[in-house]
Amino acid sequence: MSFVQTVIKCRAAISWKANQAFSIEEIEVAPPQSGEVRVKIIATGICLTDASASRGKILDVKFPIILGHEAAGIVESVGEGVKSVKPGDHVITLFLPQCKKCEVCKREDANTCMEFFHGSQARGVMDDGKSRFKCKGKEIFQFMGTSTFTEYSVLKEINVAKINPKAPLEKVCLLGCGVPTGYGGSTKTAKVREGSTAAVWGLGTIGLACILGCKNAGASKIIGIDKNPMKEQIAKEFGCTDFINAGDVSKSIEEYLNKKYGMIDYTFECVGTIPTMKQAFKTAALGYGVCVLVGVSPQDEEINLSPIDFLLGRKLTGELFGSYKSVDDVPKLVEEYMEGTIPLEKFITHNLSFDEINEGFELLHNGICVRCVLNYK
Amino acid sequence: MSFVQTVIKCRAAISWKANQAFSIEEIEVAPPQSGEVRVKIIATGICLTDASASRGKILDVKFPIILGHEAAGIVESVGEGVKSVKPGDHVITLFLPQCKKCEVCKREDANTCMEFFHGSQARGVMDDGKSRFKCKGKEIFQFMGTSTFTEYSVLKEINVAKINPKAPLEKVCLLGCGVPTGYGGSTKTAKVREGSTAAVWGLGTIGLACILGCKNAGASKIIGIDKNPMKEQIAKEFGCTDFINAGDVSKSIEEYLNKKYGMIDYTFECVGTIPTMKQAFKTAALGYGVCVLVGVSPQDEEINLSPIDFLLGRKLTGELFGSYKSVDDVPKLVEEYMEGTIPLEKFITHNLSFDEINEGFELLHNGICVRCVLNYK
Repeated sequence: MSFVQTVIKCRAAISWKANQAFSIEEIEVAPPQSGEVRVKIIATGICLTDASASRGKILDVKFPIILGHEAAGIVESVGEGVKSVKPGDHVITLFLPQCKKCEVCKREDANTCMEFFHGSQARGVMDDGKSRFKCKGKEIFQFMGTSTFTEYSVLKEINVAKINPKAPLEKVCLLGCGVPTGYGGSTKTAKVREGSTAAVWGLGTIGLACILGCKNAGASKIIGIDKNPMKEQIAKEFGCTDFINAGDVSKSIEEYLNKKYGMIDYTFECVGTIPTMKQAFKTAALGYGVCVLVGVSPQDEEINLSPIDFLLGRKLTGELFGSYKSVDDVPKLVEEYMEGTIPLEKFITHNLSFDEINEGFELLHNGICVRCVLNYK
Repeated sequence: MSFVQTVIKCRAAISWKANQAFSIEEIEVAPPQSGEVRVKIIATGICLTDASASRGKILDVKFPIILGHEAAGIVESVGEGVKSVKPGDHVITLFLPQCKKCEVCKREDANTCMEFFHGSQARGVMDDGKSRFKCKGKEIFQFMGTSTFTEYSVLKEINVAKINPKAPLEKVCLLGCGVPTGYGGSTKTAKVREGSTAAVWGLGTIGLACILGCKNAGASKIIGIDKNPMKEQIAKEFGCTDFINAGDVSKSIEEYLNKKYGMIDYTFECVGTIPTMKQAFKTAALGYGVCVLVGVSPQDEEINLSPIDFLLGRKLTGELFGSYKSVDDVPKLVEEYMEGTIPLEKFITHNLSFDEINEGFELLHNGICVRCVLNYK
């Protein structure tokens, strides 16, 4: 196989500074180097993490940058040594890599690959210290090892999962972040049991996927909690049996839930705020309840907990990307979608073209939008 | 079977007030009522929890009281409906009951029986609201469902485990609290794997038993951490491979440990202070490390933790009584002692007679004493 070292010119949505609108520009995408692949992006979801990064709220994000991380596309070319994919393969982009070499990847029960913390992706560049993007002569930083708000992106081989080519890319792009994070929270991290009771805080994509996982795992009571009453209808479509409008509860929500539902086996925090994390922890049954932190809180915030709660059998855990090993498990999730177990269509409330990216971000906070997918031509 | 309703007069060590020496007095022990057993205590260990209670540091302890909870003895008589033991049976006293009826007991993976939180034992009395002890006409409160600092005690059937009558009671009394708590922390709560690395904070009975569990589970590196350099020798007898004097480490102990040992699979906090809990949590490997809280902290203290650590795969758990189901598992631990897997003798550094109880408590803080056993005549 020969490696043609061509630069591709294409369009990308650049974030020049924090808190600025995305600017569609022509960029140059360098060819993939050793261990890298260049992917033609077909569709990308818009996730809250992109919005946080765009507002400069993620500490290690450097501008100018190309954001985006929840996408599907087709491999255009590969660098030297790449074995798992070839040009033409359909792939999903993975912000959480799976290097298969580090101490974490070597363990069956862990998924937070050390490349995620310590690799070059955390610095917004590739292993040679350079980004593969240039615009107007300036180097543009990469984001989360993915950068999907561009027609072409370069990722490491460990940041792509090869999937069934029959899967519609404009749907399965959601398997790059939010859906697996919530779905795996209940099915894989907590391993929800049949007949159990679960409560889920925050009914965005992650919370709804978490509810779907609880339902597919056979939970008999699934309580959804949100401040937005408009979430009730869609939550019930995913399997929520009881909706609680957090704004309607005047006393402590943990007391309210325990009085109304008795001991609750599983609680899932999908909001990412300290007060809701404390509520979820205190709601899990003393003796055996498991609280799973799924939502991402600001990096400098801390949660105060009573050690006695742990001694008395309450468990607290967290997860990234649903505890899935990304390269290995995402193709399986695609099959679950194909079999109808994970109805991705239900999450996609809006479809826009890539050019409409700024409108897509506006939709994110309107309370009706679950996932908006941007489609590239 | 007939139930003879006799009162027994015997000697007990009364704690009349907080922070007073124990006073040996003649008491009256009422006969066991329905579901209760009266036990002739043969030997009892002295545990730090007794010392804390004696100093009035446990919130729900009411004086006057008969403390003590880590004992072995012989059933003298039983109340109506008692089926699991009969007079003459050898038993170990259980501060953590196993009622086999509550939501927690019904689950395989949980052990903190709801009678422990909500039963009468939490109020220092029996189910009829009365104590079975009287001294000088005054009712004397019971402690943790056990009260073993007396020649005879009355316990509920759910607070005793029937054991092999060949086991020496003056040794296996230790299986009533400290040893299972530490041993189960590593073998049952964390399920330490062969070839793993573990670090244990606090090398009293619980910490040493935790080290023993790590060793028996096949951990290849077992790091013991204590401020008292005298602990090194005994810790190594239990399987500790590396001793760290916490007083010798000037920088943060988590940094020190991670630099010296790399990623640490398991950390166990057996001290019960917030700073050591934070150290243990931060030392557990990011990605998969498990921190187990074993030491009991004051009830009103809280620990501040970063939720991000949980998302990135650090796990925090706690346990009471080594996650053992007390009635079912303590007899099995006695067999493990008989087979030589749990060498209880190594923990017993001092033997005293019951009359010397005040000397026993003085020994507790001298830095050499691991467990002092009080022997009744």
